[in-house]
Order: sequence, then structure tokens, then C-alpha cells
Amino acid sequence: MPRYKLTLEYDGTGFVGWQYQGDGRSVQEALERAVERFCGEQVRVHGAGRTDSGVHALGQCCHLDLAKQAAPGVLRDALNAHLRPAPVTVLDAAEAPPTFDARRDATARVYLYRIVNRKAPLALAHKRAWHLPRPLEFHAMAEAARLLEGTHDFTTFRAAQCQAASPVRTLQSLAVTRIGEEIAIRAWARSFLHHQVRAIVGTLVEVGEGRRTPADVGAALAARDRRLSGPTAPASGLYLEAVIYRPPRR
Amino acid sequence: MPRYKLTLEYDGTGFVGWQYQGDGRSVQEALERAVERFCGEQVRVHGAGRTDSGVHALGQCCHLDLAKQAAPGVLRDALNAHLRPAPVTVLDAAEAPPTFDARRDATARVYLYRIVNRKAPLALAHKRAWHLPRPLEFHAMAEAARLLEGTHDFTTFRAAQCQAASPVRTLQSLAVTRIGEEIAIRAWARSFLHHQVRAIVGTLVEVGEGRRTPADVGAALAARDRRLSGPTAPASGLYLEAVIYRPPRR
Repeated sequence: MPRYKLTLEYDGTGFVGWQYQGDGRSVQEALERAVERFCGEQVRVHGAGRTDSGVHALGQCCHLDLAKQAAPGVLRDALNAHLRPAPVTVLDAAEAPPTFDARRDATARVYLYRIVNRKAPLALAHKRAWHLPRPLEFHAMAEAARLLEGTHDFTTFRAAQCQAASPVRTLQSLAVTRIGEEIAIRAWARSFLHHQVRAIVGTLVEVGEGRRTPADVGAALAARDRRLSGPTAPASGLYLEAVIYRPPRR
Repeated sequence: MPRYKLTLEYDGTGFVGWQYQGDGRSVQEALERAVERFCGEQVRVHGAGRTDSGVHALGQCCHLDLAKQAAPGVLRDALNAHLRPAPVTVLDAAEAPPTFDARRDATARVYLYRIVNRKAPLALAHKRAWHLPRPLEFHAMAEAARLLEGTHDFTTFRAAQCQAASPVRTLQSLAVTRIGEEIAIRAWARSFLHHQVRAIVGTLVEVGEGRRTPADVGAALAARDRRLSGPTAPASGLYLEAVIYRPPRR
């Protein structure tokens, strides 16, 4: 029974999130329905990460097993045909070793958060970025971000309902860049706590607005106290940009 | 009666185009309604260019006269509030000289055409770019584009219903660039014929697909024959990116 790895892009706006909810409005169910339409098999699709409602993906990954043997390109095109008109697309399909696990084998996940910092509301980026009309101090945000890189207890930036056994995570990189009116925040780690990126972004925005100093953020991290986090940034600015795997052994 | 210049962004997907049609579904009417809600005045808004149905704008410009005197920032914010939830936003408002004319005074218009060249259909760029699954020969497209730069009779690349007095236009620049799977075609001219950019893009895509050589495109231009144009590219990939004006005299 061959195992396949899929790489996915989706617009999370109309979905309840990645995860199966039983009401047909998750990305996972959209994919499973497409698989069933393609080959009649009822399978479970296993994602690398559970994106929340409204969160987008530029490179989510998942795996699934099929009784049917299909060339990867044929599988990709057939699933894309059966996914229409859902805003989910299979960018790539590949055969994977029988032990491959999209979640467990991922060595890193990259999240992108998009902010548009201008007075005017968003027309083209509506539901695709966080609109912040007050001018943000970009350099202060970048300085605060550097204090969060590395291995830390991220209790401060963790949702109340987070189920991870440990609050310790290693943020390999937290990069803040600005091009024109758009600020991009990229977080790179093996794994994240629930709402970690959005809580960090909400806190960095408070720094950008001059309501906290970068040192305040360092102190909030050290205090391990959720009450010291900024607000959770809206889901619609967040993208699961890539999931990284070790190259297969030859 | 002060005159104002507005710079606009819009998602053209749900509109019949820029131009007033009487049924309330044009960008022009959305703006005029917002003006009326703001100050009770029924005015005509004059655009720099008439974008077709489905064409987007990153920097459309227009002018209007108001009896009400309003600080430009107040006008921008008020119009934006009254435009909701239409996907039109006033990026900038400025007072203009009483003789300023958004259409006549423009010294150049810049159109951007976005192509996504990959097998997988579009999820996030759906209705925002032209999806072309067959690999395009980017260098041949760029070479053909160079043959169209300059002053020419563009009869070949003109819609049957085009009402311009002369088919001669000066294409100051026609640049084809590629970043990853995305090809951008930027056309820069004082003014364009009806469907000129979309006819040129459709023709360049035929070159990219190997169905014509760059020299064929030069010959098609020289023949001044609409039957030698490629197909008109879809509206949803086209953006009015900017309208250029001479700096005001001091």
C-alpha cells in the first residue's frame, strides 16, 4: 500500500482550520473527500501541522496511504480536479517511504505573518494580512524579536488550551523584514506551541506601537506568565509557509 | 469648490469595471455612493483609466470636486469608512489644482500582468493571476517583448471595439520578469489602446509555449492585422499599478 507525501497551498478563510471537525468544513476533510472521489477509498490524511481557522498555507505537508497505485503527477492532477472549487491545491505529490510521517519527521516549520502598515484599509489583501493603520517602529520590533530567538520556556506566548507536554521550544529564527508598507515576520522552529506565533506577533506589534520596549518583551518571556503576552494576532495574517524534512537517505 | 485627487486600490473581481453602468456595480459608482454618504453631494468621479470587468488596481487615480472643504486625510478616512464592505480603498487623497484632470494630465500608466506558471491550480492567487500549467519559455517571451517596445502602429493588438482615433502608441517599456513560478509583465506607456496589454500578454504566452517565435511577433506587429494577435489574456491577471503625473509646479 503506497504512501504519498503531498505539499499543499490553501486559502484558510472559509475553513474551520486544518483539523477534522466532522462538519466537512476543514481542509483535511476537503482533501479526504477529493481522495474518495478519485479512487473510492476512505482514508485519513495526516498533516504536518494543525492550522487554525482562517490561517493560510503556502506549503503545508501531509501523508496518506492508498491501495491504488498512482503516479505522483497523476495523483496531484486528479486530486486538484476533485478539490475544485475548494481553495485548496496540491502543489506536489511524491511517493514516500512506508514509515514517513508528515508530522513526526518534520525537522522544521516556517510560519510567515503578514502585516500591512498603512492608513487605508485593505482591498487586495483583505483576509490575507493584518491591517494596522498606526505607523509601526520596525527597528524596535526587529530588536524585540531577536530576544525571543533561541531555546526558551515560552509559557508567556502559549494559549491557555495548549496541550504540549513542555513549554520549551527552540526558535531557530524570528526575522522581521519590511518592504514598503508591508512587514513580514518569519518564525522558524522544529515545532511551535498553540498560538505561539500569533501571541508573539501581537506582542511585537505592541513594541512597534511604542507601548512596550524590546526589554519589556525579554522580561515578559522570562516571567513565564501568559498575562504578560500581547493580544493574539488575527489568524488571517498567518501562513504555514513551509515544512522542512531531512533529504531521504540514498 | 476644491478639487481632490484620489489614489485607489481595488479588487476588480466583483465589479463590472471602473466605468459607470447605471446598475451600481462599477468601481466609479461605489466611490460616488461613498461620497454621497459622506457629505450628501452627488458628484461625478473622473478616473485616469477605464479598467475592464475583473481588472484590479494597485494605483488607479481619479479626481472629483466637492462643495465641502475637507482635509485630505479626513476625506480619505471618511470615504474608506463609507466604502465598506466594497473591496475598494482610498490609498491617498490630496488637494489638486482646479484644472487638474486625472485622465488628461497623466504622463504615463503602468499595467502589471501576473502569470503563475505551475501545474497546480491557484488557491491563494485565484482570480488574481493567470494560471498557465505548461512550462513557459521565459527568455523567448522577454525577447519578443523587446520587439514591441517603442512607437508603433498597434492595430494588431487592439480590440475591435477600440475607439481611439489613432492606433499609434509608444510603449516606453515592456518588461518580462520571472521570480520562481511567477511571471510578471509590466507595460509602461502614456496611454494604451483597448485590450492592448491583454492582447500583447496573450501573444507573449504563445511565444512562451513555443507556438510562435519572437520574430513572428515582430511580423504580426508590422502586419497591422488583428487576426495575427494571440488571444486576449484573462482580465483577472491585470492590475493598473500606477498612474504617473508631472510633479506640480512650485
